[in-house]
Parts: sequence; structure tokens; C-alpha cells
Amino acid sequence: MKLCLSALVLLLLCAAKISNGGRILVWYTEASHWINMKPVLETLVDRGHQVTVLVPSASMFMNSSEPSRFQYEPFDVAITVKDLEKRLEAVLHFSMHEINVINPVMIPFRFFALMKDNMDVSFKLLDGVVKSETMMKKLKEGNYDLLFADPIYPGSDLTAHILGIPLVFSLRFSIAHNVERHCAQLPAPPSYVPAAMSSLTDKMDFPQRMGNVLFYALQDFLLEQFMWKEFDKYYSEVRGTPTSACKMMGNADFWLLRTYWDFDFPRPSLPNIKFVGGIHCKPAKPLPKEMEEFVQSSGDAGIVVFSLGTVVKNLTTDKANMIASALAQIPQKVLWRYSGEKPQTLGPNTRLYDWIPQNDLLGHPKTRAFVTHGGTNGIYEAIYHGVPMVGIPIFGDQPENMVHVETKGAAVTVNLNSLNADELRDAVNTVINNKSYKENVMRLSRINHDRPMSPRDEAVFWIEFTMRNKGAKHLRVQSHDLTWYQYHSLDVITFFIILDLLLLIILLKTCSFCFKRCCGRKTTKRKAE
Amino acid sequence: MKLCLSALVLLLLCAAKISNGGRILVWYTEASHWINMKPVLETLVDRGHQVTVLVPSASMFMNSSEPSRFQYEPFDVAITVKDLEKRLEAVLHFSMHEINVINPVMIPFRFFALMKDNMDVSFKLLDGVVKSETMMKKLKEGNYDLLFADPIYPGSDLTAHILGIPLVFSLRFSIAHNVERHCAQLPAPPSYVPAAMSSLTDKMDFPQRMGNVLFYALQDFLLEQFMWKEFDKYYSEVRGTPTSACKMMGNADFWLLRTYWDFDFPRPSLPNIKFVGGIHCKPAKPLPKEMEEFVQSSGDAGIVVFSLGTVVKNLTTDKANMIASALAQIPQKVLWRYSGEKPQTLGPNTRLYDWIPQNDLLGHPKTRAFVTHGGTNGIYEAIYHGVPMVGIPIFGDQPENMVHVETKGAAVTVNLNSLNADELRDAVNTVINNKSYKENVMRLSRINHDRPMSPRDEAVFWIEFTMRNKGAKHLRVQSHDLTWYQYHSLDVITFFIILDLLLLIILLKTCSFCFKRCCGRKTTKRKAE
Repeated sequence: MKLCLSALVLLLLCAAKISNGGRILVWYTEASHWINMKPVLETLVDRGHQVTVLVPSASMFMNSSEPSRFQYEPFDVAITVKDLEKRLEAVLHFSMHEINVINPVMIPFRFFALMKDNMDVSFKLLDGVVKSETMMKKLKEGNYDLLFADPIYPGSDLTAHILGIPLVFSLRFSIAHNVERHCAQLPAPPSYVPAAMSSLTDKMDFPQRMGNVLFYALQDFLLEQFMWKEFDKYYSEVRGTPTSACKMMGNADFWLLRTYWDFDFPRPSLPNIKFVGGIHCKPAKPLPKEMEEFVQSSGDAGIVVFSLGTVVKNLTTDKANMIASALAQIPQKVLWRYSGEKPQTLGPNTRLYDWIPQNDLLGHPKTRAFVTHGGTNGIYEAIYHGVPMVGIPIFGDQPENMVHVETKGAAVTVNLNSLNADELRDAVNTVINNKSYKENVMRLSRINHDRPMSPRDEAVFWIEFTMRNKGAKHLRVQSHDLTWYQYHSLDVITFFIILDLLLLIILLKTCSFCFKRCCGRKTTKRKAE
Repeated sequence: MKLCLSALVLLLLCAAKISNGGRILVWYTEASHWINMKPVLETLVDRGHQVTVLVPSASMFMNSSEPSRFQYEPFDVAITVKDLEKRLEAVLHFSMHEINVINPVMIPFRFFALMKDNMDVSFKLLDGVVKSETMMKKLKEGNYDLLFADPIYPGSDLTAHILGIPLVFSLRFSIAHNVERHCAQLPAPPSYVPAAMSSLTDKMDFPQRMGNVLFYALQDFLLEQFMWKEFDKYYSEVRGTPTSACKMMGNADFWLLRTYWDFDFPRPSLPNIKFVGGIHCKPAKPLPKEMEEFVQSSGDAGIVVFSLGTVVKNLTTDKANMIASALAQIPQKVLWRYSGEKPQTLGPNTRLYDWIPQNDLLGHPKTRAFVTHGGTNGIYEAIYHGVPMVGIPIFGDQPENMVHVETKGAAVTVNLNSLNADELRDAVNTVINNKSYKENVMRLSRINHDRPMSPRDEAVFWIEFTMRNKGAKHLRVQSHDLTWYQYHSLDVITFFIILDLLLLIILLKTCSFCFKRCCGRKTTKRKAE
């Protein structure tokens, strides 16, 4: 009854189009990060808020002159789109080719060199906001009620602090959960919470738990040396006072983490952290006529959807031919998002597309499998619609993401570098013909759908909540005010150990004294005798 | 738009009176625990479920022959209501009188003797279910879909296990969060999560953090010695195989903890633990005519509501007179729930009642303050309606509860044993006249109301969820399968320390060997020379 009443009140509120009229500033971002923020921002606009998105003059995926329901706040940066593209190219080249040919000892060095480049670009973008007087003046005059940001592009916390407005983060993860653990204070016992990017699961044997502890420790060390020090320097310079960038991030009022227990392994949480995985998922819309005809022509065999995401446009000719010949051997029709040159081995069952309506295809009743690079967004769409997956992870979090869905029995993962046509064909046939994959992904789909409110509504609620309450300090754990050794009670334990040792020494001394007195007397007595 | 759509769908579902038709078995409980479960059960009945409550033949607060919307499943137990009352009397006598006169050294012994009595009663109640073949047969034939229990009365987990049905717990807390930490695997870093019943807050200095660590350790030790061993014996005997009662409790699918961040200090959580404090709170209904007239006669001064809860019926004549004379000195009218003899000092502004509609009074616009024993239910009603409190805690969790609301600036606490009339009068005047108390409790009230769904709806959602999914295993952290030293990675740390020591020894030995070789040669050379 109460539930019905709540629904009725909510509906009446909606009908009355009650506008909260908040002013939301959105931090600049790119690619899949933007895909995740957009549906939330659209709902916020629906609910009467004004949404203003910061867009740098160099952006690969965002365009401030595009007609949109959002307002844009463009700002100048000292880099070009070419620079950004070159950097992405370098990351892709490293992940897809370089990694197989260079000396394994050199991999971490090359990786950190790439990270260094990445950080330089981040700082140049950030310069455009916090080091531009005009920009900061404009933002201050904007009287924003909240800053909404994906911390993948750093500096939003610093900006929110300068503007004196609440901050809500939308985050997929940081390597080894370094940011979540140290800045948001999220507990992550290494015995059952696998470090992000370790490709471990929550069920670990002794060597794996050892590996996990080492991975956490190593990443913490490397990030401290190569990342946090640089950030602290930048932040301190801007603020003119020694500043910890991690503490500044920890000031965020709310953290919306983009996973849920369909995809992620259960782990501890905090009151100001919510798991809202699958924000962008939605029911399928009808396909374009020509595409629907092709899909229908597949008959009972159905279709396979193939996409390596927005950033991988081309493969080597060999790889493309190998993939095409594998796909030619399966009974399904295949819709392959691929803008490279048409492979010679392309079968009559496969069509190439520059772009596909991925969500609508995955929600189509004829879809039997999804071949994916393993980006979180694509995986979530497959989970939402209950489609088993074949993963060809390429870089970033993709291998890790595939470990999650593979562990849950909803996918098979293959390695692009060593992949051959037979293996790919067999993988696709397996997830289609072995019923367990469909059953498992349907179980994940039920978990995805069966929550008290949709992830988008939940994200919107907490953003509005933070605006209404001008922050969410009452949800903030006190550990933010503790040092690391206080947090782990190491000072208390050390004190107890010292106390115990002192007591032990006093006890031993007393015993020895008594013993000596006792025996001493006897000896004196005997001597006297 | 999506939110509106969800509300519409929910409303349509409600309108269609979609009945899930689950069969819910409810574990026996008493007093305030029942007050908390009842609204959830009523909502479940509204939503088409069949609710069957286990009621022992000896119960102080529950009556299976009362007309009700629930079905009752009475069972025989080898104790009488008199035994239960005697035990409660003993606990009250200990808390209100004995504790002031006995030797402080004896307090823990007396406390554990009372706990022992309590446990014996618990086992006798449990015998009536799990050791009764007729009863277990009946429950098996009931084909229940879920067992809903407050673990304050143990054995529900054992019963759910035998019946093979999912289990949802509703829990306020266990001492030092022993059950939540060890059985539910809820992380509770002692550096900022105060142990339940320690009367500490989440802001602790070094001595307090030391006290907290000691409190956790001491309670864990005592409970292991005096409680868990007994439980393990009982469970093992019933099952005929060695059984850990804590592991059995840890099998619960879902934990509904009856606090929220209005009342509680922010702390870590887990996916199968939700904080649903204030389940029973609801808007005030109009008062009975005579009572409303009395309330209205208070004019601008307003009223004070006074209740020491359901279990404390009488006070000593001295205490009652002291309280009455304090209340006689305040300008407000007072409604005092008190069924003892009328105190001689009772002022004309104070009326005694055997029972008061507490929630309706607290929600009355004329209410200025609430004098309470500090039970969670009463405190939550005061928070819900935004009424500042004066706490006179008596036993159990009451002193601890008052620490929470006092820390949050919404209450003043006094000590019944040392209390005098002036102190009580001043306390009531303070919370009424010092504006900060009203402001703070209104802030807590806003937090209480401002959540994505009401605590009752949230509890109902997760109970239905657990029924729908025949459990909630996917929300269960893997730490359940780890030993305590694995959980804390102590085996990994020990291994690394041993490895380090071995490497150090090898290094030292090598150095020493090289040094000897080097110096040895020189010495031989010199000798030869």
C-alpha cells in the first residue's frame, strides 16, 4: 500500500513537472565515459535542471557546436585533436602490437612512458580551466550548484574546491582501486577483493592472494611515485599551498561506481558510494529497414553482432582476413562494425558497417551472440539484453572486464594476438550452442533488472540529493581524518606490543630478583653454616 | 522521464494488485523487535503474501489467539510467562538498582550470569521448534518460501537450513558488532567504527581508539567463551554433525540493519546488508479528543512527551516524585506514560497515562520535547517528526543510542541513578530553549526522509527479491569461505616476512663468505710475506 502511495506521489510530482532548477556543471570527458554520463544528464534536463558541459577546444568525441539539450562551455587548450589522436594511436599500438615484440622487461617502462604522456595531456587540458582567469571567472559567475565529473580526467575536485560547490564522481575504477581505497576510503581486503586490472577473481588460492597483495602494493608504490607526486605538485602550485590531490578527491560528496553485482564481484561499500552499473542500458528500438531485413534473413540460426568499440577502427589485413574467414564458417548472419578495408575472405553471411545501433541489435530477438572488445558499456548492454559474449579484449580494462563475465559463465575470451580462425569460430559456436552461456547471461540479466530502482534513477536521485543538501557530509566516514597507520590501528597495536614487552620485562626482572634473593639467602646461609 | 515511467509502471502493478503470493514464515520475537517487524509484515500481507508467525506458548507481548491479518503457528515450550517476566525483572533490577550497589568487580560476572539465564531461556524456546518433531513436520509441510527473523532469538538460521529455505534477518545490532563482523562478514575497522555498546563515537582520539580495540577484542573473547561455544554445541547436537552457529548465521541471504545515517555513524556495508532504520515511522494520526484538548490547552508553550518504554512500568517512589517535581517546574504541559502509583509531587501541568499514542504525539505540532529511555524505536519516531530529546537510558542499547543522538546535537542525556529534579528540569528546558537542538534534529529528520525509497519499501523489496530469486547468493562476499587469518592476509604477510628473512640471511651469508674469502686471502698473503 505504502509502495503504491509512494509511486502515486512520485507520479504526481512528475506530472506537475516539478523543476528543481539546479545548475549542474559537467567536467569534460571522452568516448565511453561520456556515453555513461549522457543518459544521466538527459534525465537531469528532463527534470528541469540546467546542464552545462565543459568542452576543451581539442576533443576527439565531443563537439560544443553540435545542437544539444545541454549548454556547452568551451575552453581553449594548448593541444590539438591531432595530439590526442596520436596519443590514443600510441596506446593502441602498444596494446595490439608493440607488447608482442618488445623485451618483456621493457613493458612496464614503456607503459609508464605512455602514462606520462597521458598525464601531460591531462595537465594541458586542466590548464585550460584552472589556470585560465577568464574561465574561472566565468565558472564562478555561473553559480553552479554541483560539479559532476568522471575523474579519469583529473582536476574536477580542485575546480569544485575553488568554486566551493559539491562534487559527484562517476567512476568505472582506478588501477588496483587506488583512488577508491585511498581517496574515497573504500575498504578492499586483498584476500577477496581482486585489485582492478589484476585479472583475478574474488575466489583466490594462496598464490593468487599473494599476487593480489603484491599487485596492490606495487601499484600503490608506482602510482605514488609517478602519479600522485605530479598531481600534488600541480594542485599545490594552483592553490599556492601544499595540497594532497588524493585528499582533494576524497572531498567528493558522492561516488557513483559504474558496476553492479551482475558484472562485479560482491565487495564492501560505503554510504556515499553507490554501484550504478548499466546506466546507459535501455530497451531496443526497431532497426533500420535494410538492417532488419538482413537480420530476418538469418532464419532460426539468428545473428551475431561484432564490434571492437569506438576506438579501434582498423586491424591489420591479416587479422581482418582471419576474423572474416572465421565468421564465414558460422551458420549465423553477422553484423560487423568495421570501417577498414573489406577483407578478401569475407563470407556472404557477413556484412560490414561503419556504425551499428549496438543496443538495438543486442536487444533483437534474433541475436545469438555478441563478439566484443570487452568495454564495460558493451558488456552491460549484452547483460541487460541477455546475450552471451565472445571477448577479444584489446587494451585498458577490457581483459579484466572479460575475466568478470567469463568467471560468471556468460562469455568465452580469446587473445587477438594469438588468435586463429578456427579458434574464433569455435568460441562463437560454443557460446551459442552450449546452453549454459545463455542461461548464465540470463541470470546476470535478471540481477541487472531486479533492483529497487534503475541505475539511472539512482544516479539522478543522489545527484539531486547532493544539490538539495549542498553536499553529503553526513554520509562521509571518519577515516578521512585518519592517517594510514591510525586507520589500520597500527599505533594502537604498537602501543600494546610495547606495553606487553614492558610488562614481560618487569615480570622477568621481578622473578629474577625474587629468585636471586631466595637462592642468594640460601647460599649465604649455607656459607654461614 | 524514466523516473516517471517507472512510477507509472509501479502504480499500474499496484493497481492490478499483483500478488506474488509468497509464503513467509516469521520467527518468534518480543517487544520492540516485534514493533519493527510488524509494519514490514503488514506491507507484505497488503502485497498478497501469506505471513505466518511462530508464537511460543510463553510470550509476554505476543498472543496467537488475537485477531490479526497474520496467521499464527503456536508451539509449546517448557517455560512459563512468569519465567520470562522474572528474567526481565532481573535484567531491569540489575540495570536500575543492583549496578549501583554491588562491587564493580562483580558487575561483569553478574552480567554474564544474567546472559547465561537469558541463553537458557532462548534454548528452551528453540527446543519447542527444532526439537519438536510435530512442529518441524508442520513447518516442512508449510512449504514456506522464506524465513524472516530477528536473530535476537537464536535458531532461525538453523531452522531455515533444516527447512532448506532462504533467510532474511532484521537486526538492530549485536554487542561489539560481533555477529555482523564475524558471521555477516561486515568490515568494521576499529579506528573509526565504534564497537556497539562501547558508547564511543566515530571520532576517537588515541585512548578511545585503544579502548575500542580492547572492547572489540574483549567482547569477541567473552562471546566465544560464553555464547558461541554453547550455540555450537546445541546446533551440532540438533544436526548430528559439528556445526558452527556463526557460519550458520552467515548463511542468511539478506541482513536488514535497523539504523540509517540519521542516527548511526557512517560505516562500511556489504551488498547483502541494507540499513533500513525507522521502518515503523509514519505520519501522525489525530489524537483522542480528551488528549487533544489537553494538548491544545498548553498554548504556545507546547507539550513534552514522556515515556520510559514498554518494559519499565514502575519506578521507586523517590524517583517518581523527583521526576514529577521536575516536570511540575516547566511551562509545558506533560503527557507521561506511567502506570505506577501517582507521585505526590505531580504538578497540575502533568497527566499520567497507562499508554500513549507515542507516534501521534511526537508528530503533533505542539510537541516541544521527548523524554525517553532511549529505545531505538522511540528515538526514530522523534527523528522522523523532528523532536529534540532528553534521554534517561536504563538498560541494553539505550545508553549507546543516546550517545548517537547526543553526539549529533539532538539530545541531552541524564543518568537516572544520580538524577535530581533540577537537572531533569534544566535538561528539558535546554533542548526546548536552545535552538540548536531543534535545528539538529530537523537536519536528522531531513536525512531520514530524503532517501530513494522508504525503509519499509526497501525492506519489503529485498524480502520479495530473496523469495523471487530463491536466495541472494550473488550478493554474498567470498570472505565467508576464508579463515580469519586468510581474511586478514596474515598467511601471505607471514610468507613474505619469512621470504624476506631468508633472503636477508642468504645475503648476509654471501657477504660474510665473500668478506672471509677476501680478507682470508690477504691474511694468508701477509703471513706468507
